[in-house]
Amino acid sequence: MNYKKLGNILGKIMLLEAVLMLAPLAVSFIYKESVIHNLAFIIPIAILSAFGFALQIPKARRNTLYQKEGFALTALVWIIMTLFGAIPFVINGDIPNYVNACFEIMSGFTTTGASIITDITAMSRSTLFWRSFSHWIGGMGILVFVLIFIPESDDGSSMHLLRAESPGPQVGKIVSKMKVTTRILYLIYLGMTLLEIVILMLDKPIPGYENEKLFFSLLATFGCAGTGGFGFIPGSMEAFNPFSQYVMAVFLIFFGCNFSLYYLLLIGKAKAVFKSEEVRSYFLIVASAVGFVFLGLMGKFGAFPQEYTTEEAFRHSLFQVSSLMTTAGFTTTDYNLWPMLSKTALIVVMFTGAMAGSTSGGIKLSRIVIAVKGAYINIRKLINPRYVPKSKFEGKTLEMQTINDVFSFITLYSFIFVISLFLLSFDSVNGQTITVTSDAGAYEVTHGFFSNFSSVLACLSNVGPAFEAVGPYASYVHYNVFSKIILILTMLLGRLEILPVLILFSKRTWKKL
Amino acid sequence: MNYKKLGNILGKIMLLEAVLMLAPLAVSFIYKESVIHNLAFIIPIAILSAFGFALQIPKARRNTLYQKEGFALTALVWIIMTLFGAIPFVINGDIPNYVNACFEIMSGFTTTGASIITDITAMSRSTLFWRSFSHWIGGMGILVFVLIFIPESDDGSSMHLLRAESPGPQVGKIVSKMKVTTRILYLIYLGMTLLEIVILMLDKPIPGYENEKLFFSLLATFGCAGTGGFGFIPGSMEAFNPFSQYVMAVFLIFFGCNFSLYYLLLIGKAKAVFKSEEVRSYFLIVASAVGFVFLGLMGKFGAFPQEYTTEEAFRHSLFQVSSLMTTAGFTTTDYNLWPMLSKTALIVVMFTGAMAGSTSGGIKLSRIVIAVKGAYINIRKLINPRYVPKSKFEGKTLEMQTINDVFSFITLYSFIFVISLFLLSFDSVNGQTITVTSDAGAYEVTHGFFSNFSSVLACLSNVGPAFEAVGPYASYVHYNVFSKIILILTMLLGRLEILPVLILFSKRTWKKL
Repeated sequence: MNYKKLGNILGKIMLLEAVLMLAPLAVSFIYKESVIHNLAFIIPIAILSAFGFALQIPKARRNTLYQKEGFALTALVWIIMTLFGAIPFVINGDIPNYVNACFEIMSGFTTTGASIITDITAMSRSTLFWRSFSHWIGGMGILVFVLIFIPESDDGSSMHLLRAESPGPQVGKIVSKMKVTTRILYLIYLGMTLLEIVILMLDKPIPGYENEKLFFSLLATFGCAGTGGFGFIPGSMEAFNPFSQYVMAVFLIFFGCNFSLYYLLLIGKAKAVFKSEEVRSYFLIVASAVGFVFLGLMGKFGAFPQEYTTEEAFRHSLFQVSSLMTTAGFTTTDYNLWPMLSKTALIVVMFTGAMAGSTSGGIKLSRIVIAVKGAYINIRKLINPRYVPKSKFEGKTLEMQTINDVFSFITLYSFIFVISLFLLSFDSVNGQTITVTSDAGAYEVTHGFFSNFSSVLACLSNVGPAFEAVGPYASYVHYNVFSKIILILTMLLGRLEILPVLILFSKRTWKKL
Repeated sequence: MNYKKLGNILGKIMLLEAVLMLAPLAVSFIYKESVIHNLAFIIPIAILSAFGFALQIPKARRNTLYQKEGFALTALVWIIMTLFGAIPFVINGDIPNYVNACFEIMSGFTTTGASIITDITAMSRSTLFWRSFSHWIGGMGILVFVLIFIPESDDGSSMHLLRAESPGPQVGKIVSKMKVTTRILYLIYLGMTLLEIVILMLDKPIPGYENEKLFFSLLATFGCAGTGGFGFIPGSMEAFNPFSQYVMAVFLIFFGCNFSLYYLLLIGKAKAVFKSEEVRSYFLIVASAVGFVFLGLMGKFGAFPQEYTTEEAFRHSLFQVSSLMTTAGFTTTDYNLWPMLSKTALIVVMFTGAMAGSTSGGIKLSRIVIAVKGAYINIRKLINPRYVPKSKFEGKTLEMQTINDVFSFITLYSFIFVISLFLLSFDSVNGQTITVTSDAGAYEVTHGFFSNFSSVLACLSNVGPAFEAVGPYASYVHYNVFSKIILILTMLLGRLEILPVLILFSKRTWKKL
């Protein structure tokens, strides 16, 4: 283990987090919040800076990182970011319980959007800003951000870090000139973020929140860009005007796209984009899912008390599919009360997630496409043992190694899913009844199997809101500490796509080679 | 396609089914049932015999089968067996709806035990016998049975059939002298069956059924041996004495073992048995699951109204774990009302299933063990790229190909699971409330997500009873025809372990090579 180099990078991340915390601190000043709210950010900034600078002092003899070190470091960075990022909530008293605060900020950084807050109106603006801002930071990746600014030309080791943090089955060709392209991708991210803020500003303000248009546009955009999904007023996006809801739905779909596609578009390779199998499958699945959810809401399969107009049913279908498939988790209505077809269609897209190389979570569509092709190859081989697979993915030959890695990932994902589900069953919250108040009125719901199942799915796929007792108008607060820690870990496993976290907690990682 | 050879084998299977139907016909005679009950078996016997003999006439030029033909034939045989096996229920009027009848007998042959019967007391004895007998037939495999008696020495093609039908990731060394060993395995199966019947006969008769001891011992043993699980009196095994319940639990655990192990024991290789990793993991998981279910029933995690004595809690835990893990599906009490920990522990063992080479369903423990080792290897490779895996399974080197096949299987299993779950969501039964009357009294339950989830699991893993509205005291009758066909297919996919069914329905299978 190259502890010194690890410390150097960790220190840089801590300094970065200190710098990032200046933003909510500024919000706290702008809105003239109390001293304790200012201190809530000043204190962690001071601690982070002290540690950050101290960790720069030891000079590493070896300037590179091995693969295992890169993977372990990545997981470690996210945990450290969370442990410090939770401090402000505890100091300003918005989330006094430290585990809850860690849950909230890990949910933020991993762009999950699962919340333990029951009364969002009681939160200070700096808290709301820091929560949503963490989505925007976590969306593109924390380490990636730092790596762009690391002056040393250590592309070999940065590669490992990038590989560990970027979502999707493999790092494409575009990453070969890594730093340059990563900067371009970050610029695209920034550009799309600004564009969404501007468009949201065109809408009428929300009744009752006339002075908050810019603030809300910022927070909503942070959530969309990072596909996070923390709400900041009661009912998530329910109170927003239909115009804003449509804008967000469309931006969510675009933030669910592989960012390299925009790069390809920018350099005039539109043809490659439209030929991409992942793009095609993405828009096909989005359209089908919207269709199925809509059919459900129109009462075509199973009775459903018609409470939506056709436009509302369409808008909610579009918004909910784009929000849950990109694993953001914003909501416009209580989908928990929807008919089974609509709910199950949402569950399916929560599994798949959107594209690799986007800010979304889940298994990712490229993996699904590769797995389907892999299954097809296996069947062909059984039908004809002399069959030589010559499958392609995105125009390139699909190696058996890639297919096997995907199969391995989905197997691990399933195992972690079942194990987490089992661990949540120890919680005494199971079987308890809670009262949920949503746009459809108040109702009682029992915390049952579907609550746990959807919680694990919502955390592992970084979606956020789940179903039943953990639905869009409920919260994760009822889970006990043990369950919350399990869910924090599943969020991290989901965001880093499993292996870096397993490597961090593997004994062998810390042994000498 | 070697259609003539295919027809020959199919014909032999039909003749076999005709012969097997003589047993319920005999039961019908013994219990002096009406003419229509006799005809219910005589008619299909006549049809099967006619087809069976006719299909023997064409002489195949090529006496061997290619792999794809073997796999497609296996799936086809199970479908044909079901289509004819359902006829008696329709004729004698016990299950007038043909789809329901197909559901019931497919559930029988695949040793699932999922039932659409709401009033078991209305069934004739010949129906009850045919249902349970189908478990015993399907447990060891239909084709396997025929192959032993096929006189031609075509081990090459029989190998494909055996491979398609036998549960587990690979055909072990023991199958090299296939016919001999298969005969031995069948003898072991027969021996254990007889032993269980004899032991069950030692118990006191069930109050109210004093004259049925032999009949019930037979049916219960068929269900245990094939790990099927059709009940034949109200409340499944609830009315049986504790002695019989313990006996069945123990036999279920033994029928969940790889039958080759008994062969090894017979030839004096006890050491190999105790060193087997699958054996160790099996008994470890059984013991842990019983422990967790028991802790749940004692109210240790989440309140549970204490209605069982400690002995009862232990007995129900042991019985339910052994019954659901071996994917039999017999029940002694309404586990649907159990606390979440107990229920989730049962869900987990429904996924794993018992050992490969047993009559149980599910993913099978050897696959779980291999997948865990595979994941470990992948992590080791990331930690140290120069790492050369030298993992072993059951004393033999674990090939990467085997690991990848297992990953591929689990991925396919997950995909089929999610797709089936989605297809069930179209059913208008979702959201409806049904009344269940169990040993704990009558209660209302809504057909929700957990009903569909557990139904898919119970059918794909060949368990039988599910949870919520499809729990042990409810039935599958409420599903519509489309859902029932989906569930029939998942049962077949589960029993034949996916690939043969996919190959049967693949266009390429029917093309010339």
